[in-house]
Amino acid sequence: MASVRPLAERIRIDSASLNDKIHYLASISGTRLAYSEQDIRARSVVLDLMRGVGLAVSIDAAGNLVGRRDGHQQLSPITFGSHVDTVREAGPYDGVLGVMAAIECIRAVRDAHYTTLHPLEVIVFANEEGQQFGALCGSRALLGLINEKDLQQRDESGRTFADAIRAIGGDPAQLSSSIRKPGSIAAFLELHIEQGPTLERARTPIGIVEGISGISHTYVAITGTAAHSGTTDMEARNDALVAAARLVICVEQLARQKQCRVATVGQLTVAPNAINIIPGTVTLTIELRDLDAAKIGAALGRLQQEAAEIALQGGVRIELAEREPIQPVPCSPLIKEAIRQACTDLGVKFENLASGAGHDAQIMAKLGPMGMIFVPSRGGISHSPREFTSAEDCALGAQVLLDTILHLDERLSTGMRPQP
Amino acid sequence: MASVRPLAERIRIDSASLNDKIHYLASISGTRLAYSEQDIRARSVVLDLMRGVGLAVSIDAAGNLVGRRDGHQQLSPITFGSHVDTVREAGPYDGVLGVMAAIECIRAVRDAHYTTLHPLEVIVFANEEGQQFGALCGSRALLGLINEKDLQQRDESGRTFADAIRAIGGDPAQLSSSIRKPGSIAAFLELHIEQGPTLERARTPIGIVEGISGISHTYVAITGTAAHSGTTDMEARNDALVAAARLVICVEQLARQKQCRVATVGQLTVAPNAINIIPGTVTLTIELRDLDAAKIGAALGRLQQEAAEIALQGGVRIELAEREPIQPVPCSPLIKEAIRQACTDLGVKFENLASGAGHDAQIMAKLGPMGMIFVPSRGGISHSPREFTSAEDCALGAQVLLDTILHLDERLSTGMRPQP
Repeated sequence: MASVRPLAERIRIDSASLNDKIHYLASISGTRLAYSEQDIRARSVVLDLMRGVGLAVSIDAAGNLVGRRDGHQQLSPITFGSHVDTVREAGPYDGVLGVMAAIECIRAVRDAHYTTLHPLEVIVFANEEGQQFGALCGSRALLGLINEKDLQQRDESGRTFADAIRAIGGDPAQLSSSIRKPGSIAAFLELHIEQGPTLERARTPIGIVEGISGISHTYVAITGTAAHSGTTDMEARNDALVAAARLVICVEQLARQKQCRVATVGQLTVAPNAINIIPGTVTLTIELRDLDAAKIGAALGRLQQEAAEIALQGGVRIELAEREPIQPVPCSPLIKEAIRQACTDLGVKFENLASGAGHDAQIMAKLGPMGMIFVPSRGGISHSPREFTSAEDCALGAQVLLDTILHLDERLSTGMRPQP
Repeated sequence: MASVRPLAERIRIDSASLNDKIHYLASISGTRLAYSEQDIRARSVVLDLMRGVGLAVSIDAAGNLVGRRDGHQQLSPITFGSHVDTVREAGPYDGVLGVMAAIECIRAVRDAHYTTLHPLEVIVFANEEGQQFGALCGSRALLGLINEKDLQQRDESGRTFADAIRAIGGDPAQLSSSIRKPGSIAAFLELHIEQGPTLERARTPIGIVEGISGISHTYVAITGTAAHSGTTDMEARNDALVAAARLVICVEQLARQKQCRVATVGQLTVAPNAINIIPGTVTLTIELRDLDAAKIGAALGRLQQEAAEIALQGGVRIELAEREPIQPVPCSPLIKEAIRQACTDLGVKFENLASGAGHDAQIMAKLGPMGMIFVPSRGGISHSPREFTSAEDCALGAQVLLDTILHLDERLSTGMRPQP
C-alpha cells in the first residue's frame, strides 16, 4: 500500500474550503427536517457545490442526490457520502460533515488532475434522521425497502410520503428505478462525527468504526396494585415502581458488567402517579445495543430471568415484549485496514470503536464492503446546537476519508476480493 | 367500668337498621363530591335520619350538620361522627359508616329510654375528602383554620369556596361562629373503615387506633445529562433515572427496616422520556408516614445522606425539598382504654394500629381527648367501588362505638380527668 503515499501527500484536503462549506449550510438554517423547505434549500446548495467540483449530478427516484466522476476503468464505483437533513434543534456537523468532506475529496482529486481507477460516487441520502416517514429512507430505497404502503403514510401536516419525495425532486412512481444490486458498488465509506465522548476522552482524532451496533427494544409493563400509601403497610404492597426501580438497576448493571455494550431505560411512566397512591402500573422501555447479536440475545435472556425474580419478590406481574431487533452490521475488514493504513501514513492516532447510532452505511453494507470514519464530538454532544467538532478534526477526518478512497481504489482494482 | 356492662347488654345496635342506612345513601349516588348536588342530597337524607332519632339538628356556619341530644348534666358533650362526602368513584363505607353508626347509637339509646350524663353530639363534617378547597374543611372550621383567603378559592367550575359553603346551608360570613374552644368537648370518637389490610390479615374485627400518622412530603429533582443512548458509553453517563431508581429502593428499604412506618414514591416523571435518550431529569415525590415525628425526621435525614451518595456515584445533582409536614396526632390513652374495655366486655378481638390516612378526628384532638375505632376493609381496598366491610363488622364497630361512649360517659363524669 506504500505506493499511494505520494498521492496522499500531493492530494490535500483544504481545511478552510471544507469548514466554510459546513458552516455555510448551518448559516442558512440550523434545523432542516427532511422534505421541509429548509431541507430543499440546503439540497439545492449542495447540488450546486457538487456540480461546482465537476460531478455529474442526478436525483434518483427516492430523492437521493447522486454525483458521479468517471474513473479510468469500467468498474463499480467507490461510493461515499452522508445526509443534510437534521433533527429539530440540530447541530452543524451531523451528516453535513460527511457530505461536505465527500465534495471536498472530489475537489482535491480534481485540482490534483488525478483520475482514480474506479468511478467515484458521492451520495447525499434523503431523510436519514427519520423525523417523519422513518429513518434511513434514501438508503433503504436503494435496497427496495420502501413499499407502496409506506408511500401512503402522512406526516403531521397531512402530506403523504409520496408527496414529500416529489417535493425534493424524486419520483415515487418510479421508486424501483433507484434500486441497486448487491455488488454494484466497490465500497461504501461514510465520515461522521462520533456523537459520543469516546474519542474526545481518549484524545484521539480518528475512530475506525468496527461496526454499527444492533438495537433491541423491549417494552415492559409492570402491573402491581394501586393502593392508599398511608393505610397499606409495607408487607401488603405490590408496588409497581419499586419493581421497576430494581429492573432499571439490573439493566444498567448488565452493561456495566460488559454483558452488552450499552443498556438504557429511556422511557418510564407511572400510573396513577399521585403522591399518596402506591404505583399500580409502570411501563418502561429497555434498549440494548451491541455489535454482537448473540450478546444482545443473551443479555435479554438474563434480564427476563431477573424480571421474573423481581416479579416474584415484589408480588407484581412483569411482561416483556421485544420488538423486531435491528441486527448489528460489521464493517468490512478490508476497509478498516485501508483506514488504518491511511492513519498510519498520515501519522495520526486512531481508535477502534463501535457506532452506537444508526447510519445509512448500515444499509449500504448490503451493496458492498462498508466502512465508517469517526471524528470527535466535543462533550459527546450531538443532536443539539451545542454539537461541535474542531475545524482541524473535520479536515483530518476528510483527509483520512480521501486517503482511504485512494488506497481502496488501488487495492480493489488489483484483483483482491473485498470481504463484505 | 364493669358497672356499664348491663347497659351494653341492654342497648343494642341493630345491624339491619345500620346497614340499611349505609346502603340507602350509596344507592342514591356512589360519588358525592363535597358541595355537589349529590352531596347536598345525601346531607338532606342524613339530616332527616338525625331528626328521626330525636336529635336537635342545626347547620353551623361551615356547613357541618350538628345534632344534639341532652344529657342529665350540664357537661361538655361527648361528640362523635364522620362525613358523607366522597372522592370520585368512591365506595359505600368511607365516612358513611361513622355517620350512620353515630345515628344508630342515638336510636339505640333512645329506644332503650336511656339518658346519658353528658349531652351526646353527632357531627357530620363538611368536605372531609378535599377534592376541592382542601381536606378536613368542616373540622378545620371548628378551630378557626379557614380564613378569608381560603374562601376566595375557586373550584374547576369557577365557584368560590364561600359559595360552596352557602350551597350546603353554611354562612361563610359568620364562619367564626362555628369556632369551638379547646376543652369544649368531653371526648371525640370516630368509627371508620381501616382502608388498609391489617385487620383483615390478622382476622381481627376491631382496630383501636393508636394515633394518626404524621406525613412528610418531599419533592425531589434529579438532574443528570440527557444524551444519545447509542453513542454514550456507560462510563460517560449521568443518568438521572438510574439515580432515581436507587433512591426509590432506598425509600422502600427505609420502611422495610422499620425506620419509618410506611414510605412511598408515588409520583415519578422522566424527561425527555424517549426510548433512545438517556434520561436527563427525573422528578419524584417521597412520602414518609409514622406516628413518631422524630422517626420521620431521622428517616428523612438518612435519605438525604443516601441521596448525596447516589448523586456522587451517578454524577447527577439531587435536590430535596420537604414541604411543611403534617404532625402525627396520638389518640387519648383514656379513650383507647375505654375502647379496649368495650371490646373485652363484648368478648371481641382487637388490635392496636396506626391510622395511615388523615381524618377529621386529628383536628378534633385539639378540642378534647380523641379516639378512633377501625373495622376491616376487605383486601385493604378503599376509595374504590370495590370497598367492602361486612354487615357484621359494621354492626360490631357501631356496638363498640356505643359501648365506648357509655363507658366514657360514666368515666368522664366521675371526676377522672381526661388525658388529652
